[in-house]
This record gives sequence, structure tokens and C-alpha cells, in this order.
Amino acid sequence: MENKEFTTSEYPNSEKIYKAGKLFPIQVGMRKIRLTPTVKIVNGEKVTTKNEPVVVYDTSGVYTDKKVVKDINVGIPRLRESWILERNDVEQLDEITSDYGKARLNDKNLDAIRFKKLYKPYRAKEGKEITQMAYAKAGIITAEMEYVAIRENMNNEELGIKTYITPEFVRQEIAEGRAIIPANINHSEAEPMIIGRAFAVKLNTNIGNSALSSGIQEEIDKAVWSCYWGGDTLMDLSTGDNIHETREWIIRNCPVPMGTVPIYQALEKVNGDVNKLSWEIYKDTLIEQCEQGVDYFTIHAGVLKAHAALIGERLTGVVSRGGSIMTQWCTLHNQESFLYTKFDEICEILAKYDVAVSLGDGMRPGSINDANDRAQFLELDVLGELTEKAWKHNVQVIIEGPGHVPMHKIRENMDKQLTTCKEAPFYTLGPLTTDIAPGYDHITSAIGAAQIAWYGTAMICYVTPKEHLCLPNKDDVRMGVITYKIAAHAADLAKGYPGAQVRDNAMSKARFDFRWKDQFNLSLDPDTAKRYYVESHESDDKFCTMCGPNFCAMRISQKVQDELCK
Amino acid sequence: MENKEFTTSEYPNSEKIYKAGKLFPIQVGMRKIRLTPTVKIVNGEKVTTKNEPVVVYDTSGVYTDKKVVKDINVGIPRLRESWILERNDVEQLDEITSDYGKARLNDKNLDAIRFKKLYKPYRAKEGKEITQMAYAKAGIITAEMEYVAIRENMNNEELGIKTYITPEFVRQEIAEGRAIIPANINHSEAEPMIIGRAFAVKLNTNIGNSALSSGIQEEIDKAVWSCYWGGDTLMDLSTGDNIHETREWIIRNCPVPMGTVPIYQALEKVNGDVNKLSWEIYKDTLIEQCEQGVDYFTIHAGVLKAHAALIGERLTGVVSRGGSIMTQWCTLHNQESFLYTKFDEICEILAKYDVAVSLGDGMRPGSINDANDRAQFLELDVLGELTEKAWKHNVQVIIEGPGHVPMHKIRENMDKQLTTCKEAPFYTLGPLTTDIAPGYDHITSAIGAAQIAWYGTAMICYVTPKEHLCLPNKDDVRMGVITYKIAAHAADLAKGYPGAQVRDNAMSKARFDFRWKDQFNLSLDPDTAKRYYVESHESDDKFCTMCGPNFCAMRISQKVQDELCK
Repeated sequence: MENKEFTTSEYPNSEKIYKAGKLFPIQVGMRKIRLTPTVKIVNGEKVTTKNEPVVVYDTSGVYTDKKVVKDINVGIPRLRESWILERNDVEQLDEITSDYGKARLNDKNLDAIRFKKLYKPYRAKEGKEITQMAYAKAGIITAEMEYVAIRENMNNEELGIKTYITPEFVRQEIAEGRAIIPANINHSEAEPMIIGRAFAVKLNTNIGNSALSSGIQEEIDKAVWSCYWGGDTLMDLSTGDNIHETREWIIRNCPVPMGTVPIYQALEKVNGDVNKLSWEIYKDTLIEQCEQGVDYFTIHAGVLKAHAALIGERLTGVVSRGGSIMTQWCTLHNQESFLYTKFDEICEILAKYDVAVSLGDGMRPGSINDANDRAQFLELDVLGELTEKAWKHNVQVIIEGPGHVPMHKIRENMDKQLTTCKEAPFYTLGPLTTDIAPGYDHITSAIGAAQIAWYGTAMICYVTPKEHLCLPNKDDVRMGVITYKIAAHAADLAKGYPGAQVRDNAMSKARFDFRWKDQFNLSLDPDTAKRYYVESHESDDKFCTMCGPNFCAMRISQKVQDELCK
Repeated sequence: MENKEFTTSEYPNSEKIYKAGKLFPIQVGMRKIRLTPTVKIVNGEKVTTKNEPVVVYDTSGVYTDKKVVKDINVGIPRLRESWILERNDVEQLDEITSDYGKARLNDKNLDAIRFKKLYKPYRAKEGKEITQMAYAKAGIITAEMEYVAIRENMNNEELGIKTYITPEFVRQEIAEGRAIIPANINHSEAEPMIIGRAFAVKLNTNIGNSALSSGIQEEIDKAVWSCYWGGDTLMDLSTGDNIHETREWIIRNCPVPMGTVPIYQALEKVNGDVNKLSWEIYKDTLIEQCEQGVDYFTIHAGVLKAHAALIGERLTGVVSRGGSIMTQWCTLHNQESFLYTKFDEICEILAKYDVAVSLGDGMRPGSINDANDRAQFLELDVLGELTEKAWKHNVQVIIEGPGHVPMHKIRENMDKQLTTCKEAPFYTLGPLTTDIAPGYDHITSAIGAAQIAWYGTAMICYVTPKEHLCLPNKDDVRMGVITYKIAAHAADLAKGYPGAQVRDNAMSKARFDFRWKDQFNLSLDPDTAKRYYVESHESDDKFCTMCGPNFCAMRISQKVQDELCK
């Protein structure tokens, strides 16, 4: 595969810095944005004042560290491998153990598209509890926990901003099930990050091909750019060809946790025939993906046979792919869903690799009309029951949420989820606050996402402008990520998250000082901000084309202050 | 000037319909979207079910009525002129009465850019009270009131949707100051519309050139397209050359109420020298614009001399152009603002033409840091005092609001405004919920706008992607309008506005039926939705590229329903 532009990209006027751990020999990557000084003319003299750099959360991993050589054919460094091995509770298997994984490996026809560097999978030693939740409950602080504590705080300490986030706090939140660190021992390339409502709001991006589109190179491209723009986790929702191989490429190059919906691949294995889906095929798929390094699985185990009867009450039936598959399976077989009946066994598998479960909302509403209906909330009750089951296995849990919900019904979603699922982190798609804007659903949903994240949702799943219309391309991924960074950050401000306002203040001061370049560099999308500006300006003037020189409020306002200070 | 594409545009698969008044011989324009039938295969037979057309609010005026001949050199029909004359309380003046207007008229150099068809201005007869508020207080229902009542209800009656909106309800709301119909007697081209929190949320778009950009043709273009896409009112914020002539062109072709900020033009008249601004120049500007047909004026009369001292506490000082001009004027002259001291006289002028006042928030916060601060709320107190003053003159009032406000501080803005300004309609810019996303401020602000509109804001002022960077072009206007239509509509749904969900339901049913063309036609931006779809599809298939045929949830969901119904 070709190494594209992203392997050498950097953020403008920024540098990668690392903060060392105190408990563990870890280095936590962050982005430091350098600022230019404020220049004022006071009594005819030029007075220059330094502006401190701003440190921001960085999801781009080694891709923005110019000291690291990147080659997507080799993958990125396995940051956590030594941490995992030092705990001495995992074993490296001689070979992968899924039937499907073996078959793909032995298929010479796939050599051309296969990721070359093969790793043997790790798995918990017999009798060992290796999930972050297991450690947390046992009172053990892991390197991952210290890592996220440092990461979440950025440079709050240096700035004198009070924060409650310590490694011990992280441990407690995980032990109580209020937060998770998705961290499959086979995806040690990923930098630890935490999902929980006491922490900064996170955002997930979806990529993946379908039968009708998109190749491996394009998916890697979208994955890495998603991290560059600010995606905290990544779901590969591929349903097309070579899902297994595509996933391997992405995981080996992915600095953030990756999720999948295993039922999609299971269905591909039976050529799309829901009737032929079985627990055995699904189970083999779980093991296959656990050993590749998927960090969390969406499992629609809350969709029960009885729910099918409720679809008829709806305007848009079932709009979750996983939900619709399982509904159909239950109806065709006249049996309870194997995801539900085999849930304990599923958890046993996941626990061996520390894969988290994201309980899917197969009955999420697909229209304003269906929001907060019986089908949706009956499923939520089941998710609450499954949450406790997973916790017994020390499997980390997040809960997926809607969907299409008008603003006045959003709060009820959040409140019910917290109660029903005992405060397990909520992870919502949007919600979209109206149905009537295809082509703009990143916006209809950002309105809902900002709100629900403020109310307590821990992670929001992005929606791109192409939602409801077609698969997103790279530009759509960018638009989706930046839009959701906005929603997440707006929620952090509203939550009063420690240090969240530092970047806003720096931006606003740069605005008031007419430091245009700093404004670009501090923005969520420096390239776009700069391009808009440059297209219509000639120089670094102390006004912009919006108002022209006479009407610049900030310019006049500065004059007034100068006048008053005379 | 050239007649561009917009003069012959139509909405796809739609027709202009008119509903007749019962009290007055009026015809209220609306857009009827025709839908295709639902086609299903039941027991091998094709079963076709008709889908009723959807009637939606239409801001495009005659531009989408193919029966009307449009020529921007002539202007659009003067819909309300006969209604006004029948009330027998206005007189047509022999000539315009502002000094500036006369000077421009007599300047032969301007002939080339002048709108050719000149109308003599109307003004209230001596002693007559001609504002909608005056009529409302006197218990009189006007044609404008019946017009907006029909317009707001669309076809709720036919659909059996209960509504509280009657011409008498409209009258009461206006009499109490809770709603306004901006309707200058000299802009009879505009279709009546109502701004108030008991009605559908409205959106305003800003256009206008600056010293650095943009000509007349481009401004007309932006104005008419803004109406086509859904702008309810339009502000011309020009600060460049030929403001007077540009405005004439826009008003004569504008089917929605138009607002301005007269201080901008007053300042242009003194070549940008704030020191030379005076009440006399400002007053002449008011009369000039009243006689052209401006429907509402933003007047920053709440910025007082004492407020200047509060700027120093802020991170971004004053970011309102009008606010900064008046702050500087007060400081330079060491006098109270003439907008405040002459407010009664201003109202007397406005009342003669039924121009509404939009009390500007000169102290609106320009950053998250400055939100809800002392300067902002002290000014709001002054706006409350001025509201009552204006009402005494029967001048209709709306109140402008912020700005940059984090989500958790939005509610306080709404609550304080309602109390302080005695429920006069709130009209907010955004608010922007974070400072860090230049290039995406339509989104940072739509999040806040949807929220504050749900809480009770009557009109939201759009923000384009270019906010903070440069002036918007036509594409930016489109993006701003559609984004704000989304925010306004999301708020209408959350408010439970009668009939708001009809369009969502029609869209969702079209989705479930795979009626793609209906989805495009029902969407806020049919062209964009269609373009995204067409770029990645070959036919009108019963699935899309997002999921491909095997993974289409709706398709599977329909199968399940078919199965259960056997």
C-alpha cells in the first residue's frame, strides 16, 4: 500500500510533546500549539507581550510525531505491548484460533492484499482476569489508567486549574462501571483513552466499505485522517469484500481504539442469508476479531423475539442494521436471539482479550415519530439486565443510544439510560433532531449530540452529511469529525469540564489581538479557517472583509479602551 | 441589471398554491409538494397507495410562482398597497423628505446604478396611528393579521391538526407586544409574516457589502436566493459604496421584511469618523430608510456612556459594530448616547411608517468568557426600559440577543430577556456555543440557536461558515440558511408547534418506502440531497450504498413485517 500524505502530516505551528507518568514509565502524547506575541502600539512605542502556548488533547498518535518513521505496511509502534506483558497474566498463542481466521491465512489468493507483518495473538492465561475493570475492582491502578488521567488533564496543573482526575479516580470510575478504557491486548498500538461522563466527551467515527464501494487503501486513508482531525475511536462497519484483511490493515495502523459490529461479518460469511446465521458462526467471528485486536464490539443482544411485534406500531420500523438482522433471525427461526441466550459465553470470550461490549440499540428510533416509544425503552430494559451480566464477567460496557429524537425528548433518553443501565457510559448516534434535512444530517444530529453530551452522554457517534444518502468519502469524514468535535467541546464547556475553556480563551484573545495565524492554528480545522480567510484577504490587517476598516468592532473597542486608559 | 436564474426558479415537484382569506380578500401563498405513491408487492401483486401532498411554509414569494412575470428592473408586485390604502390613514408624499435621499436622487452620476421605477413614499396622516400594534390595541384585525394566521396554519385544518392560531389570537399577541408583523407601508412588496414565540420560529439572514467587496447585482442575487432557501427576513448590513441605491434594488425585489442598522450608513456619511456622527445625520438616515421601505431598524440605544467602563473586564471587548460605534461616540463626546436620549423622537418617526425597532445588543458577548456578564445584562435592563417606551408610541419591538454563550448559560439569557423586556420577542444571533471553530460557526451557533429557540426565542439570526473570517458569498448564504432552517424546525418540533411534524413524518414514510425522489423533494435542500445520492447510485434501488442490499435495515424490517402479517 501507498504511504500517503497523512504519514508525514503535522499540525500547523504545533509540536508533539510527551508528559511522563509518575507511577509508570509512560509518555503521554499531546499537541502544543505555539502562539505569536501580542503587539500593541503604546505611546508610539511597539510593545510586545508573549502568549503562552496552548496544549490540547491529541488523537493523532505518532502520525504527528516527526521523530517516528511511519510506514503503513509495517504499522505503528505497539505502545502498550510491554505494559501488558509486564503484568504477566497473558500468553501468546502459537497461532490464531478462529476457523475463519485460519482459512483466510491459508488462502494464497489473499496474499496480495494481506497485511504482511503478522503478530501471534495474546490471550489471558487460564484463570486470569485481565480486563481493566477486573484490575480496577481489585484496587489495581494500571498504566492505562495513569495514562488517561494525564491525558485528560493536559496541562491543567501548570495552569493552576483544579481537577478531580487522578489515576485513583480513574480506577474508581472503571470499577463502578461508569467509565471504560477500551484496550484489547491485541491492539497495543492504540493509545489509552477513557469513555465516561466524568471525562471529556469523546467522539466515534464510522468508516468501512459496503458491497457497492471503497477499497482497503481508501479505508486506511479515512481511518488515519479521522484520527488527525480528532476522532477518539473508530468503528469499521465494513460489509463488503475482504472485511478480515481490511480490518487487519486498519488495526495495525490505528492509534485509537477500534470497534466493529461482528454480526455484519457473520452475515457476510453466510452470503447475506439471515436464515443461515448461527451462534457457531458468530462465535468464531468474535474470536477472529478478538485476536486481530478489535477493542469493542457492538452487540445487539437486547433485541428479543418479542420485540418484532412492536415494529408494526412504527413509522420507520427497525433502522439499526444489527437490530433488523436479529429481528429477522428470531422471526424466521421462531427462537430467542442467540446474542441474548449466549450472552454469558460471549462475555467469557471478550474477557480473555479485554474487549469491551457496546450494547447495541437495535430498536433505536429512525424517525421523530418513533422516538422514545415502547420498542425503544423495552429494549433499554434488556440492556440494563445485560450490563450487570457483563460486569459480573468484568467486561467493560457502554450502551448505545438513538437515533432520531426531537429536542424535548432527549433528556428522557439520558435519564432513563442512567437509571436502567446503572450509569454505564452512554454512547449515542446524534440524536438527529429532525428528519427533513438529508445532506445536512451532521448538523441535525450535532444539535442533539451537543445536548445529550451535556446531559451526560460519554461518547457521541458522528454522522456525516451523507447519512441517509450514501457512504461518506474522506471529505465527509472530515466534516463529520469536526462537527462532532464542536458538539463534544460545546458539551465539555457546558459541563464545566476542567480546562475546557483554555482553548476558547486563547482563540478569543487572538481574535481581539488580530493575530490571524494564531486563530487558524487554534481552530479545530486550521486548513479550512485559513483557506476561507486567505481567499478574501490580502494581508494580515487589523480588520477583516466582514466589516472593513471603519466598522471593525474590536478595533473600535480597543481604541475606546486606549482612550479610557489615557 | 441581469435577470438571473432565480427569477424563474421553482421548487422541484412542487406548486405554488394560495389560500383565500375569510375576513379579507387576500391570497396566502404556500408550497405544495407532490408525492409519488407507495408501491408494494403483496402476494405477488403490485399494490399502489396514494400519498397526500405536503404543504409547507413558503418564503420565496412570487419567485416560485410561474404565473408571475419577474423582472428585477421592475420589482415584484406591491401585494399590500391596496390593503394599506383602504385603511385610509396614510398619505402619499409629493417627494421623499430626507436630505440625503434628495441629494442622491439629484446626483446624475448615480443614474446608471439607480433602480428605475421610483415610488413616492407613504406616511401616516397627521394624528393617525397606523402601526400593526396600534390597530391591535384598538381591537382591529388587519389583513396582515389574517394573512399570517393562515400562513402559520398552512393546511392544519385539512389535516385535522388542532391549532390555537386565529386572526384574533394574532391580534392579541401583537397588542401585548409578544409578537410583531414587520410591515413598513413603503415595502408593500413584502408578504406579511409574524415574529413571536407562539408562532413558528423564524430566521433572518444577513447580506450586504463592505468597503472591500461585493456589488449590487451580487447582493440582489444573495437576497432572492436567501428567500428561496427559506430566509424569513433579511438584513442588509452594507457598509460599502452606494448603500442607498443597493437597498432600493433589494427592497423592490424582496418578498420578505428587510432590516438595517441605520448607524452604519450614518457613519459612512461622515466617512467613518465617529467623532462627526450626530443626531441630525442619524435622524435624516432614519427618514431616508423609512421612506425606502425598511421594515425594521436595529438601534443600539441600550449602550450607555457608563457601559464603556465595563469593557476592560472583558476578553473581547465590544464585538457589535453598532455597540462599538456608540461606545466610542459617548467616550469621545463625553455625552450620553443620542440613540438613548432621542429615543422618543426616533419612535415618533418609526410610527409614521410602521417600522419596527429591533433593540440591538451592543454589549453582546464576543467570547465564551464574556457570556452573561455585567455589561451584557446591564444593557438588557436598558432595553427593557426602552421596550416600554416604544410600545407607548405603538412601535413594534423585538430584542436582539447574543452572541457567544456556552450551552449551560443559554437558558438564563432567555429567562432574563422575557422578564426584563416584558415578553417582547427575542431575536438572537446564534448563540455560538464555542469559540474554537472558525470556518464552522454556522454549526457552533446552530447548536445554540436550536436550544434558545426551543426555550422561546422567536427569530434566530443565521451565521455562515465564514463568520469571523470574511463576508459570505452565495454558497455561504445557502449553507447558513439551511443550517438555520434546521435549528428553527428542530425548535418547532420541540415546542410542539401545531403541524410541525407533518413534513418529518412524510419524509420518514418516504424513507421507509424507498421513495428517493420524494425524500429529495421533501428535504430542506433538494438539490444537495439529490446530488449526493446521484453521485453514488445507479438506479432507484430499494437500498443505498451505505449498507448495500444485504444490510439495509429498512428492507429487512419490511420483510419481518411481511412475515408477521402472513
